[in-house]
Amino acid sequence: MKVFVIGLGLIGGSMALDLKEQYNDIEIYGIDANENHLEEALQLGLIDEKSSMKELSKADVVIVSIPVNAMLKAIPEILDLVHDDAVVFDVGSTKSQICEVVANHPKRRNFLAAHPISGTEFSGPSAAIHGLYQGKTNIICEVEKTAFKLQERALKMFTDIGMRIRYMDPHSHDKHIAYVSHLSHISSFMLGKTVIDKERNERDIFDMAGSGFASTVRLAKSSPAMWAPIFEQNKDNVLETLSEYINNLQEFKTLIEENKFDEVYNTMENTNRIKEILNGIIVKTT
Amino acid sequence: MKVFVIGLGLIGGSMALDLKEQYNDIEIYGIDANENHLEEALQLGLIDEKSSMKELSKADVVIVSIPVNAMLKAIPEILDLVHDDAVVFDVGSTKSQICEVVANHPKRRNFLAAHPISGTEFSGPSAAIHGLYQGKTNIICEVEKTAFKLQERALKMFTDIGMRIRYMDPHSHDKHIAYVSHLSHISSFMLGKTVIDKERNERDIFDMAGSGFASTVRLAKSSPAMWAPIFEQNKDNVLETLSEYINNLQEFKTLIEENKFDEVYNTMENTNRIKEILNGIIVKTT
Repeated sequence: MKVFVIGLGLIGGSMALDLKEQYNDIEIYGIDANENHLEEALQLGLIDEKSSMKELSKADVVIVSIPVNAMLKAIPEILDLVHDDAVVFDVGSTKSQICEVVANHPKRRNFLAAHPISGTEFSGPSAAIHGLYQGKTNIICEVEKTAFKLQERALKMFTDIGMRIRYMDPHSHDKHIAYVSHLSHISSFMLGKTVIDKERNERDIFDMAGSGFASTVRLAKSSPAMWAPIFEQNKDNVLETLSEYINNLQEFKTLIEENKFDEVYNTMENTNRIKEILNGIIVKTT
Repeated sequence: MKVFVIGLGLIGGSMALDLKEQYNDIEIYGIDANENHLEEALQLGLIDEKSSMKELSKADVVIVSIPVNAMLKAIPEILDLVHDDAVVFDVGSTKSQICEVVANHPKRRNFLAAHPISGTEFSGPSAAIHGLYQGKTNIICEVEKTAFKLQERALKMFTDIGMRIRYMDPHSHDKHIAYVSHLSHISSFMLGKTVIDKERNERDIFDMAGSGFASTVRLAKSSPAMWAPIFEQNKDNVLETLSEYINNLQEFKTLIEENKFDEVYNTMENTNRIKEILNGIIVKTT
């Protein structure tokens, strides 16, 4: 099986690692706009060979793991180049625009829209790790638009590397993921910004910050090149979550201002049931 | 050495565990307003004996680990009861009001104001763990107001259980800690609230939320009984940090609304340097 990974960062690189471990009959070809990343991926053993778009006609599987804005241009081009029995899937954190851009492509049935909910705050080939996908959820959109045999090939790969599959329409995906992922990133980035802006003397932060701060601000280490396009593509949903978040903060601030500490208490207590929700999430902090 | 722990939750209980491990000649007496917690602490081996305020005259060391509002009343009473050679220290997350309330106490020199920067999102005696304080920072305020011999006794205990000591005035402590701890808790609680309010069907959250969300919302599991009084006592500083945080979120939202994604990118990139700051923090996620 010839697998092409386009974009050798955390997501594509980790998938390459796990697939190589699972399958004996696999050759992994790497494509990356950044020649240094490509070389690094080869040195790290993420890929077997450096390759290019010209060679895509050889592919049985193409993994598109590049920022979501670049995907809109790249995926139709990739579909143009692959043979009729190849499956191309993306791993983007937005799904509506990606599904739209391929909707009328003659090779639509060669494409599978996927979002593996797995990542860390790190990026680039060196961030790739074994076992990243173990126990994680992969959300598949518009599965019925992919050729059955090709669905089957891709889904087997996902389950072989430990993922569980959930199906969802692209619109619902983008709406829900704004709440449970995109908003977290903004809240974390802005927390980091607020503290950095205020605390010029970083030594003070370093000394006084505990694990709680580290945990809350962890996502502020994430790659802007990955996240700015996500916020752009999911603009409407992101703005909605952000408005609600700001309103909640404003209301909480008003309660404090007005010395309504019983209500401050109640608001927090009602939110404590996040415990039960979180118990279901496999937490992998690195 | 007779050590009294008043309030047998995560902080007091974990300190009792570590002190028992460090010293052979130690007896730990527990006091708690909640009889169930006291019994649980005895069963878990956090304390050697249940005790009461009447017995405080026997104490060499008193650890006050109760919510910060209760401390304002309790600490002066405790000081009234201890003998002249006892050291009483608190572990509260605010310092100004606590230092104020003892400022003119005849036994001021028996008191040491401390804030061990260490905790998890869990609470109660069962949350107590070994080694919680290893490598953590303990911030001491107004050290010069504590009798030298008593400072020495308390500080030795802190360093014996692995803490490093930093000195700070109570006003600066409360200002900085609002940024690196109190604000994180509010951002996390409000993130949890925003998602819970929106996502009635918790199964959807469970399936789509990844480790990023779990990490960002972790502090929303924290105890309201501990945190509401902290926000009350540090009201002015908390409101200031919260205003700045809301402003930053609002500005980021405006950039997205106005499609200024280059600036969205730059804002995130400038915040990425939180990486270097965080590298210094010992992260203990549980």
